[in-house]
Amino acid sequence: MIDLLLTNAAEVVTYADHERLDSIEDAAVAIEDGHIVAVGPTDEVTSEYPESDAENVLDCAGQAIVPGFVDPHTHALFAGDRSDEFEAKLRGKTYQEILSEGGGILRTVEAVRDASTDELVENLLEQFDVMLAHGTTTAEVKSGYGLDTETELRMLEAIDRAADRHPIRVVPTFMGAHAVPNGTDTDDYVESVVSEQIPKAAEQGIAEFCDVFCEEGVFDVEQSRRVLEAGKEHGLTPKVHAEELTHLGGTQLAAEVGATSADHLLHTTGEDIDALVAADTTPVLLPGTAFGLGAEYADAEMFLEHGAPVALATDLNPNCYSQSMPFAMTLGCVEMGMTPAQALGASTVNAARAIDRAEAGRLETGSPADLAVLDAPSYVHLSYNFGVNSIDTVVIDGEVAHD
Amino acid sequence: MIDLLLTNAAEVVTYADHERLDSIEDAAVAIEDGHIVAVGPTDEVTSEYPESDAENVLDCAGQAIVPGFVDPHTHALFAGDRSDEFEAKLRGKTYQEILSEGGGILRTVEAVRDASTDELVENLLEQFDVMLAHGTTTAEVKSGYGLDTETELRMLEAIDRAADRHPIRVVPTFMGAHAVPNGTDTDDYVESVVSEQIPKAAEQGIAEFCDVFCEEGVFDVEQSRRVLEAGKEHGLTPKVHAEELTHLGGTQLAAEVGATSADHLLHTTGEDIDALVAADTTPVLLPGTAFGLGAEYADAEMFLEHGAPVALATDLNPNCYSQSMPFAMTLGCVEMGMTPAQALGASTVNAARAIDRAEAGRLETGSPADLAVLDAPSYVHLSYNFGVNSIDTVVIDGEVAHD
Ligand SMILES: [Zn+2]
Ligand SMILES: [Zn+2]
Repeated sequence: MIDLLLTNAAEVVTYADHERLDSIEDAAVAIEDGHIVAVGPTDEVTSEYPESDAENVLDCAGQAIVPGFVDPHTHALFAGDRSDEFEAKLRGKTYQEILSEGGGILRTVEAVRDASTDELVENLLEQFDVMLAHGTTTAEVKSGYGLDTETELRMLEAIDRAADRHPIRVVPTFMGAHAVPNGTDTDDYVESVVSEQIPKAAEQGIAEFCDVFCEEGVFDVEQSRRVLEAGKEHGLTPKVHAEELTHLGGTQLAAEVGATSADHLLHTTGEDIDALVAADTTPVLLPGTAFGLGAEYADAEMFLEHGAPVALATDLNPNCYSQSMPFAMTLGCVEMGMTPAQALGASTVNAARAIDRAEAGRLETGSPADLAVLDAPSYVHLSYNFGVNSIDTVVIDGEVAHD
Repeated sequence: MIDLLLTNAAEVVTYADHERLDSIEDAAVAIEDGHIVAVGPTDEVTSEYPESDAENVLDCAGQAIVPGFVDPHTHALFAGDRSDEFEAKLRGKTYQEILSEGGGILRTVEAVRDASTDELVENLLEQFDVMLAHGTTTAEVKSGYGLDTETELRMLEAIDRAADRHPIRVVPTFMGAHAVPNGTDTDDYVESVVSEQIPKAAEQGIAEFCDVFCEEGVFDVEQSRRVLEAGKEHGLTPKVHAEELTHLGGTQLAAEVGATSADHLLHTTGEDIDALVAADTTPVLLPGTAFGLGAEYADAEMFLEHGAPVALATDLNPNCYSQSMPFAMTLGCVEMGMTPAQALGASTVNAARAIDRAEAGRLETGSPADLAVLDAPSYVHLSYNFGVNSIDTVVIDGEVAHD
């Protein structure tokens, strides 16, 4: 008796990365105990696992099945509504003006500090529901809107509690070094992150990664290195927000400290990319951020030419308000020149690399049974049908989590 | 006894165009016989129409209500799948190369000619479902993939039959002059459109508008004028695909023949816009087309500066595969510099002007009860939450058509 059998899919994509995509036509997937026990042509799979031996059968005629998406970079946990700033930006207000009027990230920090942990949990669960409906089955979520020890720990606690209550697999990242709180000296703040926040976050035991915003006017390379090294000492694996606005050296830093990923990478050079590849650090590109700001996109084609396993993420946050990995794929294609296959690989196998989840993002025998069934016959529709969610059903750990 | 009462909405937008937006906070809408009988603060509306007197009550706490969207330019009826061309374009193939390999519009023409009328009806109903889920309550649909009398009439018949079976209000447009069939002389084809297709379409009695693709290498200004004048003689109101790729004079033509709308308008001048405004011809901009092609966008700000009542549309077709008016609004904001209010106005009142439906696109007493309830507290989220559909419930003619 198997738990779930998906049959007659027009196409099952079993594996995709930046270099290849494997798929099977007229295919079936058999699932037992949260894992895939067979995937192949429908007649072959059903001769081993007949429908009569399956607890649940899903006929996927005319539909494609793809690995569930991995969203490896989100700030999905926040409070407050900053849609008014979207409007203000369209009326020509600069980000600096918005900041000087008390808007921007520090407004979110205030709202998060004011929110109870219960409220934070509810907020994140709402975001998870939308992400799940768009096919995300594993998501990284960062702290970083607390900027003090108590609130950073409360954010991580909220991430943990929301994860317990939601089918999405959650990867928590500590990011006390996301910004410098108002009226604080940067070195003093780094000191408090290193000597207080990181040890306490490690003691709390929720966060797996430690991230830092390495950028001119935020944390410079040496400050960032201090944060990441302190994280490592406490068992937190490094990640870096690097070269988003300027070429400061965050990519080389990521390679030097052995970061799992370096993210944004708009001002990264070919040499930087070679360093990332040598260090096995995954580049994560965030096209939604560029789209929302009307800014430049990272040069995905340069990364691909250097053989780098490019990943995509939503960067979901109040300044880039999109929960949709399919939309990130559309932007990857239309605005960054990726093919639909590369965009899917960047959202599955490569995205899983970016958060150290080698087992995720593929549909092979033995893989976790995390997948999405599309309202369309081919994975190409994920990027082709733009602004529209082609996800029909989502399965996580062998259970139907959304339909 | 009223039919439907929507209460406690965080916001009801009653009217929006390119110049103003009217909204009411904590508001209710009362609906009887398919029309709005009251809209205002919840306590006022419910004192006249108490919940106990309503057949159905929808509590919209925390949600915004907006007029249902009007999509005034679609090629939603087609057959076949051209997602492979999307992939080919991303690999660097030009549209000319795709055409010369039998792809592009003429491939869709072949698929439509091969499809039975029943199949066409089913295809269109599927598109309508997706459009409805994205808040569209009125949609224009063009013929133009037949390019022979029989198939053009079959397309119009399919539009009519699908309209009968779906809650979306449908506005059919005859567009025999959408392209020149393979191996046919353009003047000969214009002659057949004018002397055979238009009279027969008029006799059939389904189409309300007559549209033409006025473009270099397709139909020049004089050929286009002939088509539109013949349409007028047979009771079909003109519309023009104008200045999409070059500045040929289609906008001036639209003004001269008194077209209801001129559409695309990428190479339109300030003088052209003044002519449109003077002729009361509505400019319809199609940002999805530019997005899908990675091309330039129409200069919405120039239109707004000239006081033109800019409308937005999806241009849904195999080359611009998006059914989502909210995504058109997002592009209107992010890529064309419109405000969220202008984008909403362009998708409601102004879009209704573009298809001669003055009563549509507003939520005032006496208006048809066509509306969308959002999963968000403000209309701003329609454009702010990009790549994500914020529509919760859609009401058409006073009935819940989608939830
Ligand atoms: Zn980030
Ligand atoms: Zn068109």
